[in-house]
Amino acid sequence: MKNKRNIIIFANGELPTSNKANKELLSNKFILCCDGAVFKAESLSIEPDLIIGDLDSINNNIKKKYKDKIIKIEDQDSNDLYKALIWAEKNNVESVSIIGADGGSDDHYLGNLFIILENDFNFKIKLITNNGQFNLTNSEEFSSVENQRVSLFCLDKEAKITSYGLKYKLKNYQFNNLYGATLNIAKTKKFKIECDSPKTKILVYRSNEKTR
Amino acid sequence: MKNKRNIIIFANGELPTSNKANKELLSNKFILCCDGAVFKAESLSIEPDLIIGDLDSINNNIKKKYKDKIIKIEDQDSNDLYKALIWAEKNNVESVSIIGADGGSDDHYLGNLFIILENDFNFKIKLITNNGQFNLTNSEEFSSVENQRVSLFCLDKEAKITSYGLKYKLKNYQFNNLYGATLNIAKTKKFKIECDSPKTKILVYRSNEKTR
Repeated sequence: MKNKRNIIIFANGELPTSNKANKELLSNKFILCCDGAVFKAESLSIEPDLIIGDLDSINNNIKKKYKDKIIKIEDQDSNDLYKALIWAEKNNVESVSIIGADGGSDDHYLGNLFIILENDFNFKIKLITNNGQFNLTNSEEFSSVENQRVSLFCLDKEAKITSYGLKYKLKNYQFNNLYGATLNIAKTKKFKIECDSPKTKILVYRSNEKTR
Repeated sequence: MKNKRNIIIFANGELPTSNKANKELLSNKFILCCDGAVFKAESLSIEPDLIIGDLDSINNNIKKKYKDKIIKIEDQDSNDLYKALIWAEKNNVESVSIIGADGGSDDHYLGNLFIILENDFNFKIKLITNNGQFNLTNSEEFSSVENQRVSLFCLDKEAKITSYGLKYKLKNYQFNNLYGATLNIAKTKKFKIECDSPKTKILVYRSNEKTR
């Protein structure tokens, strides 16, 4: 069995400019572009390993140039990021970093976040924006810096969450609403989230250190 | 009984630059600033009618200048936008336009959208970003332009939605997931959403005309 792949999905939002995003791009992972995002990759002199989408944003030159790297999926009922994640689910992927999912389009961004929040993929998943990073987890210790902002989002209203190392401590906290665990603060260089329900996924947001 | 008020809530995100947002600001409505958003209002030479928040982002000069217009609410379990909306709920407000809720902070923005999506306020509510506009509705006809992007979000998975005037027609559509009705397109200068469940609220996003 081949080693599992770590991939970057390049969604068709704004070009990432943060250090975290650039570090990801330079990390030599497999690059999967969502449809027209190939132009954004090319503008950074990054060549895609795979392009997935309905191809309505790609011209004939690109189609010819990457003819062996394109998977066309017409389905109008799912967006290109979802198609890319389904491909990852079927292709022995260990981790996915999503870049370019924010910016330029509120509904696209919100839709992309919901796709991550609501699905249960078999790989690690993070979404890097220019302002911070979302990680999907069940129970995990995260690195942080003092006073870094931390927000949690979860659709499961039954699961109980406990935190260690956050200013506003959560103890068997239940998400009565989707916005109830936002704007917390990391006390030092790490914090921990624990969930009593092993299948529940929590979206953990950490702001970039410099934004505070 | 006094006339009901139409208010603008100035959240503490990026300054609005779109025409729609500026039109709102010039419309002479009652201006409610969330905490530090007062600085953003002042930078546009707009004087707040009311400031609500825990006041952790306001200096003594501002506190003195607006001493008769400040309501301090300490509650750490709710954010400043939520506090402002609760004030509106109690104060005979007819409509709320929210400006500056996007930008600069992914978790703040997401939290603000969830506050709108998940609560049932007794007034009309819209959130204007630099890329488009969210309206919370049950059944309504909206103005649009040909090919304008339209996305719907709803937490109620039982309610059935029907659309008129959208490219991908919804007929008794149910929100099996939160991202399932995004990236639709208006066919002409108006479209209509109908929901069979009178209490269900649907967040309708229309992109700015120029973004397509």
